[in-house]
Amino acid sequence: MNKNKLPKQEENFSDWYNQVIQRAELADYAPVRGCMVVRPYGWSIWENIQAALDKRFKDTGHVNAAFPLFIPKSFLEKEKEHVEGFSPELAVVTIGGGQELEEPLVVRPTSETIIGHMYAKWIKSYRDLPVLINQWANVVRWEMRTRLFLRTLEFYWQEGHTAHETAEEAEHETRQMLDVYTDFAVNVAAVPVIPGLKSESEKFAGAVRSYTIEAMMGDTKALQSGTSHNLGQNFAKAFDIQYLDRNNELQYCWTTSWGLSTRFVGAVIMTHGDNQGLVLPPRLAPIQVVIIPIFRSDDEQNVVMEVVGQVADQLSDLRIKVDDRTEMTPGFKFNDWELRGVPLRIEIGPKDVQKESVMAARRDIPGRDGKNSIEISKIASRVPKLLEEIQENMLAKAIKFRDEHILEPGSYSDFQSVLENNWAFSYWCGSESCEAQIKQETKATIRCVPFNQEESNTGECIYCGKPAKKKAYFAKAY
Amino acid sequence: MNKNKLPKQEENFSDWYNQVIQRAELADYAPVRGCMVVRPYGWSIWENIQAALDKRFKDTGHVNAAFPLFIPKSFLEKEKEHVEGFSPELAVVTIGGGQELEEPLVVRPTSETIIGHMYAKWIKSYRDLPVLINQWANVVRWEMRTRLFLRTLEFYWQEGHTAHETAEEAEHETRQMLDVYTDFAVNVAAVPVIPGLKSESEKFAGAVRSYTIEAMMGDTKALQSGTSHNLGQNFAKAFDIQYLDRNNELQYCWTTSWGLSTRFVGAVIMTHGDNQGLVLPPRLAPIQVVIIPIFRSDDEQNVVMEVVGQVADQLSDLRIKVDDRTEMTPGFKFNDWELRGVPLRIEIGPKDVQKESVMAARRDIPGRDGKNSIEISKIASRVPKLLEEIQENMLAKAIKFRDEHILEPGSYSDFQSVLENNWAFSYWCGSESCEAQIKQETKATIRCVPFNQEESNTGECIYCGKPAKKKAYFAKAY
Repeated sequence: MNKNKLPKQEENFSDWYNQVIQRAELADYAPVRGCMVVRPYGWSIWENIQAALDKRFKDTGHVNAAFPLFIPKSFLEKEKEHVEGFSPELAVVTIGGGQELEEPLVVRPTSETIIGHMYAKWIKSYRDLPVLINQWANVVRWEMRTRLFLRTLEFYWQEGHTAHETAEEAEHETRQMLDVYTDFAVNVAAVPVIPGLKSESEKFAGAVRSYTIEAMMGDTKALQSGTSHNLGQNFAKAFDIQYLDRNNELQYCWTTSWGLSTRFVGAVIMTHGDNQGLVLPPRLAPIQVVIIPIFRSDDEQNVVMEVVGQVADQLSDLRIKVDDRTEMTPGFKFNDWELRGVPLRIEIGPKDVQKESVMAARRDIPGRDGKNSIEISKIASRVPKLLEEIQENMLAKAIKFRDEHILEPGSYSDFQSVLENNWAFSYWCGSESCEAQIKQETKATIRCVPFNQEESNTGECIYCGKPAKKKAYFAKAY
Repeated sequence: MNKNKLPKQEENFSDWYNQVIQRAELADYAPVRGCMVVRPYGWSIWENIQAALDKRFKDTGHVNAAFPLFIPKSFLEKEKEHVEGFSPELAVVTIGGGQELEEPLVVRPTSETIIGHMYAKWIKSYRDLPVLINQWANVVRWEMRTRLFLRTLEFYWQEGHTAHETAEEAEHETRQMLDVYTDFAVNVAAVPVIPGLKSESEKFAGAVRSYTIEAMMGDTKALQSGTSHNLGQNFAKAFDIQYLDRNNELQYCWTTSWGLSTRFVGAVIMTHGDNQGLVLPPRLAPIQVVIIPIFRSDDEQNVVMEVVGQVADQLSDLRIKVDDRTEMTPGFKFNDWELRGVPLRIEIGPKDVQKESVMAARRDIPGRDGKNSIEISKIASRVPKLLEEIQENMLAKAIKFRDEHILEPGSYSDFQSVLENNWAFSYWCGSESCEAQIKQETKATIRCVPFNQEESNTGECIYCGKPAKKKAYFAKAY
C-alpha cells in the first residue's frame, strides 16, 4: 500500500477514483492503451455480481451459451443504424495464421448480429420460441478516452439475447430484465438506481426502445449502469429470423437484448466510497469480515489466537479473513482493510479475551459510533445481523444522498446552476432539439424518462416552455 | 431432432462425433471458419466443469483475475521458443477505431507473456510470493484443421499462472495442479486419465517440463486433456519478474502455467458416448434425471401428473427436468433424452401410480438390465444412490476399456500393429530420433512418460533396441 494519503473526494473525485482502484488492488493499467487488468480483489467483486445476476437470469428461465468473439465485417453492415453506431469503435483482425484474411473479422463490440445469424438457423416454428439465452463475455470497443472499469477498450459483461412470437412478449421481456437489474442494483449492490426510458438520441443503435438504470455517483454525476433494449423486428429482418406461426404462416421474430458490465464495479466504488477508500456492501464484498488479532507477547498471541480461531469457526458461513500477518501493526491493518472496504472489522486483543467479548467496527459508520462490543457467545447470531444492518444503512445513505441531489428547478437559469452539482428532474417537451440545446449549453444529457408518471400531470418544457407531458432526469454523466 | 439414425461408432467414429454434438445441441458451427457456438446444453456441461475445477483451485489457494485479450506483438517475441511455437497460429488486430495501429495486437493464444509483464510490475519481494492466479478466458489459435470442441480457432479455458521463490516450489505447484486435473477427470468426469511427463518434442513452447493427463477415446485414440507446465525461470528472465529474497538479493522468480479447456467436453463425449448418443456422468450432467409422464386420457394425465409433482419435489436437490411436452410420444422422448445422455430416466404411468412405484432406466446400462423399479416413498434416498452407482459404473467401464486397449508389444512389428487400434506401453531410450521415426512410421506419438516407474526396471527401446530405463505410452492422438 502506498503510504501517501488518498486524495480527498471533495478535492479531486476523479483522482480519488483512480487511486482507490489501484491502491485497493481492484485493477491496474494494461500495457495496451485503454485496456485494464482486473486484479483478484476486483474480479472477486465481479464474480459476486455474476453470481447474483446469473441466479436471477436462471430464475426467469434463461440459459447461458457462448457465441464467437469474431464477427464477419459484413454482418455488422446488415442493420443500418447498428453499423453507424458501432463502426467508429471497431477493432479489426486482418491477419490470421500469417495470411491476410479475405474478409476482415471484427472483434465483437456486442453480439446482436452473430447471435441473430444463429437464431435464424435454429428457429423454425413458434414451438422453438421464446429463445432466452445469455452469455458472459468480453467485448471490445475502441474508445478514445478510457477510465478503469467505466470505459475500457475491452470490458466484461453479460449480454442477454431473446427472440419472441409477439411484440408484447418482447416488450415484457425487456421490462422484466430491467426489473432484474433494478432488483440486483438496489438489493445486492445497495445502489439506488432509477429505471426509465432512454430518449431517442440516447438509445442503442438498432433498438426500437432502450431502457436504462441510472445511478448517482458520489460526485453527483450519473452513471448508466445497465440497459435493456426492445429491438422490435429490426434485427429479425436484417438477419431473417423467421418462424412459422400457429397458423403456419411465416413471421419475423421480435427480439431483445440487455447487458450489464464491469462498469458496475465502478458504480459500486463511486456510490459508496469515502475518503478512507472503498466501502463495499456486504452482499458483494469479497471479504465480509476481517478479524485482526492484537497482541504484544507470545503468551498474548497464544491466548488471542485461540479465540480468533473460535470466532472464525462461528463465522464459517461468511466470507471472512483472519489477518495474521506479523510484520504489520494493527493500526496499519485497520487502514489497509478500510481502504479495501471490508464491511466489518473484528478486533481481538487480550482484554477482549478476558471480557469474553470482541470489538466489531463497521466500515459504513466511521469512528466510535460504528463500534459494537459483541459477546463471543453471540458472534454467530450477531455478526450476520450486523452485516444486514450495514447493507441496509448503505442503501439508505445512498438514497438520501441521491434524493438530496435531485432538484426540480423552476426556471432554465436555475436548471443550469442546479446541474453544476445535482440532477434536475424537469418537464421536457420531447423534442430532440431542446435535448440537444440543453446538452450543448449545460453538458447534461437526459438520463431517462422514469415510469409511472401520472397522465394528468402536465407542465412546461424546461428549455422551450412549450407544453410537456413527461418529466425527465437531466445530469452530467460518465 | 433429426429423424435419421445416428451413424454407428464402429462404422465412422468421427461422423458419429460430429453428429451427436449437433443433434444433442451441444454446439454448432459458427459463420467464421473454425469457430464454434457452444449451445446452452453444451455450455451447461462446461459450467459444471468450471464449478468443479474452480472449487479445487480455490481450495488450493488460487484466486481468479482477468488479463487483457490483446497482447502487443513484441511481447511474444521476448521468449524465443514461445514465439516460435505460437507465431504461425496468431490472429492479429491491425486496425482500431478506423486507424491502422502503430504496433499490431495479437489476440492471446495463451497469456504467459502479458501476465509475466504484470507480475514483473507487482512482485517486489519474497513477501509477495507465491502469486497464485487463474483466469477463465477465451483464447485464439489459428488452426487449419478444426473440429468442434477438440480444436477450434477460439476456445474457452482456464489458465493458471503462478510465481514462486524456489524451483522446488514451482515444481510442487506444477505437479499439484496436474493432480487436481487428474482428480477432477477421474472423480467428476469419470474419465480415467493417465498423468505423466511430456517428451521434449511435445512440451509447451517455453517450458522446462510439461506434464499432461492423457485420456483414451472410444476409438482408442488419445486426447491430451489438460497440461501443467514448469516454466523454470524462462519467462521470469524474458519479462524481468524479479524479487528481493530473504537476504535482500535480487532473484528471478520461478513460474508455472496450467490449463484445461472446452476440449475436455470432447473427452467426455468420446469416452462415454455410445450408438444411442451421449452418456453423461451424473456429476457433470446438466440434467441428472428426466421424468417422463405417460398417459392416454385427461383422467390419466391428472393422476399421473400429481405423482410426477410429488416425485419431482422429492428430487429437488438434483438437476431434474419434467418433460411434459404434449406434442411428442413417450417413445420419442425416450430416444431424445438418450441422445442427450441424461443419466437416469424416470417413467411414470397410470400403472406405476397404482403400484406406488416408478420405473427408472439407467442410461449407462441399456435395455432391461438398466431398469429399476423404485417405490415412490423411497425415491428421495434411492435416486441419489442410483446416480452414484451410474457414476462409478461409468468410471469402471472406461477403465476396463482403456486397460483392454493398452498393450505391451514384444517387438517393433507387434508395436506397429498394436498401434492400429490400441495404445502401446513400451520402453523408450529417450532419444528424439527414435521418437521421430516412430511418429513417421506409425503416426503415433509419445503421449506421456508415467510417474513412479521402478528405478530397477530396465529394458530395450522398442525402436532402436538400446538399453532404456523408462516406459512411455505411444498412441495416435487427436
